[in-house]
Amino acid sequence: MPHADRAPTLSDIHAAAARIAPLAHVTPVLRSRSLDAIAGCELHFKCEHLQRIGAFKFRGAANAVFSLDEAAAARGVVTQSSGNHGAAIALACRLRGIPATVVVPRSAPAIKLAAIRDFGARIVPCDTSQAARDAATAEVLRESGGELIHPFNDARVIAGQGTATLELLAQAPGLDTVLAPVSGGGLLSGTAIAAHAHDAGIRVFAAEPEGAADAHASFVSGARVTGRHAETICDGLRAELGTLTFPIVREHVEDILLVSDDEVVAAMRLVWERLKQAIEPSAAVTLAAVLRHRGRFAGRRVGLILSGGNVDLDALPWRTGGTAA
Amino acid sequence: MPHADRAPTLSDIHAAAARIAPLAHVTPVLRSRSLDAIAGCELHFKCEHLQRIGAFKFRGAANAVFSLDEAAAARGVVTQSSGNHGAAIALACRLRGIPATVVVPRSAPAIKLAAIRDFGARIVPCDTSQAARDAATAEVLRESGGELIHPFNDARVIAGQGTATLELLAQAPGLDTVLAPVSGGGLLSGTAIAAHAHDAGIRVFAAEPEGAADAHASFVSGARVTGRHAETICDGLRAELGTLTFPIVREHVEDILLVSDDEVVAAMRLVWERLKQAIEPSAAVTLAAVLRHRGRFAGRRVGLILSGGNVDLDALPWRTGGTAA
Repeated sequence: MPHADRAPTLSDIHAAAARIAPLAHVTPVLRSRSLDAIAGCELHFKCEHLQRIGAFKFRGAANAVFSLDEAAAARGVVTQSSGNHGAAIALACRLRGIPATVVVPRSAPAIKLAAIRDFGARIVPCDTSQAARDAATAEVLRESGGELIHPFNDARVIAGQGTATLELLAQAPGLDTVLAPVSGGGLLSGTAIAAHAHDAGIRVFAAEPEGAADAHASFVSGARVTGRHAETICDGLRAELGTLTFPIVREHVEDILLVSDDEVVAAMRLVWERLKQAIEPSAAVTLAAVLRHRGRFAGRRVGLILSGGNVDLDALPWRTGGTAA
Repeated sequence: MPHADRAPTLSDIHAAAARIAPLAHVTPVLRSRSLDAIAGCELHFKCEHLQRIGAFKFRGAANAVFSLDEAAAARGVVTQSSGNHGAAIALACRLRGIPATVVVPRSAPAIKLAAIRDFGARIVPCDTSQAARDAATAEVLRESGGELIHPFNDARVIAGQGTATLELLAQAPGLDTVLAPVSGGGLLSGTAIAAHAHDAGIRVFAAEPEGAADAHASFVSGARVTGRHAETICDGLRAELGTLTFPIVREHVEDILLVSDDEVVAAMRLVWERLKQAIEPSAAVTLAAVLRHRGRFAGRRVGLILSGGNVDLDALPWRTGGTAA
């Protein structure tokens, strides 16, 4: 088991894969001739929206929860999350039979809140800023004595998220490029470590909304940028890089590609129309990045992590006719 | 190759499977714990919305087009279709390099018309009634000398549609019940023949919208009902049973279960939310039927054909917020 505060290795990711094998789905990889033609490259979509709780987050949460020793597990788990990680911790704790508390910003979508509640976790609401989330989490930890499983700044979580890329590289041999969304950097770090351990020549890119471009700013400046206000339709991508994930991102990632919310919505619609997959906006940033920066991907064999599918069907980012009663 | 006007056999379906293997996808079968809990039975969803052109229709069209001899093929293919079969014929003809003409009712959704056009077929518009479709088709056949490939009343098409169930029964061993939507009865006939050749004890049900309940009326009365006006959100289920499909349906189908459009929309949303699959309304009738008639399926192992995913995202059957620019 990796130290919670040290970058995980390939063997940590292999251990995570073994640990979560009885719990998590091996998700399919989908392709589309028409999307390949539109993008001008080979696209391999790793369908983590078909993971349990509808997002890759279950991998990291399950790895962390199931690597706790009995005594720590008995005290329960505490986390903070805008949604998918909270649902993932709630389900993992239910499967292990231990209590879970999730600190949730008030801006979280109703569908994600409902999932956390349905899995039996206690919810503590807080304000949206990272500082407010941290303060509320610290308060709950103090009062409960539980174990913090941070949504991304935790090597157990990063190792778990990396298992998606282990699978992807086995399912789609010969990929030369991998893209993941970046928010706190847990998925991106796990993706990058797994990809480069597999083949140091694989190019790893991140995609980030322009309205939450803190990772891009950190990457370009070389110093971790914090405290910015995020304003984007991608409700899963509003967190900031952590102290653990930032160095991993700097070491492994070739570039962080920015996309506008309009580009995200267009890419999301393409995935719905062509792949028939109902993904959430945050999951569409990678395709949006390939389409906006197409010169960098021309002719390449590209793996993209479709990170989640928890979208509120009554609040889609476009208007529809309402053709039925 | 089966006679076009005689019910196909299991060996016709096996031959179709071999013929279309280089052309069609083997589509996945998806499951969902939460949908099983809601339905009170085991649900196995055969994902034909992930077939080429986004619907099972490609199977029958490809089988028919690729079983034409050279001389017939050279004269081209004519068909009538509210959408998916037209796109399927258009693509199959493009793959074989022969001309296609599709007679399309003016009520067909824009997304389906666009697909037919994109695959290079000639489109002939007509009125929505079955009589109008038949008249326009006869006119085109007279003028072109081409080969008619009817969307459902054709044994080559039925045999092709049956290949989906061959796959399903191999992918999900032990199914005791299979459901398919019914419109003209091509998919239902192929499903029933394949299922009963595999195991005569498998129960075969059809699902049909209340607003297009001609198959139900035919089934109950024992005489083929035609000439009714169909009014349903299920744009793919407005045709009537044919002379070839009606006897097959009577022989093999245990019951035709009716569902309201509201039930269809609710089932469609469940599939979008829980399976993350963007299916069209017509594809949701089978789940709607299981939920409405749950007593008949309690505890059973049920295969459902998700027939297509060609839905206009700007005309969804519910209103959404339009949260982005």
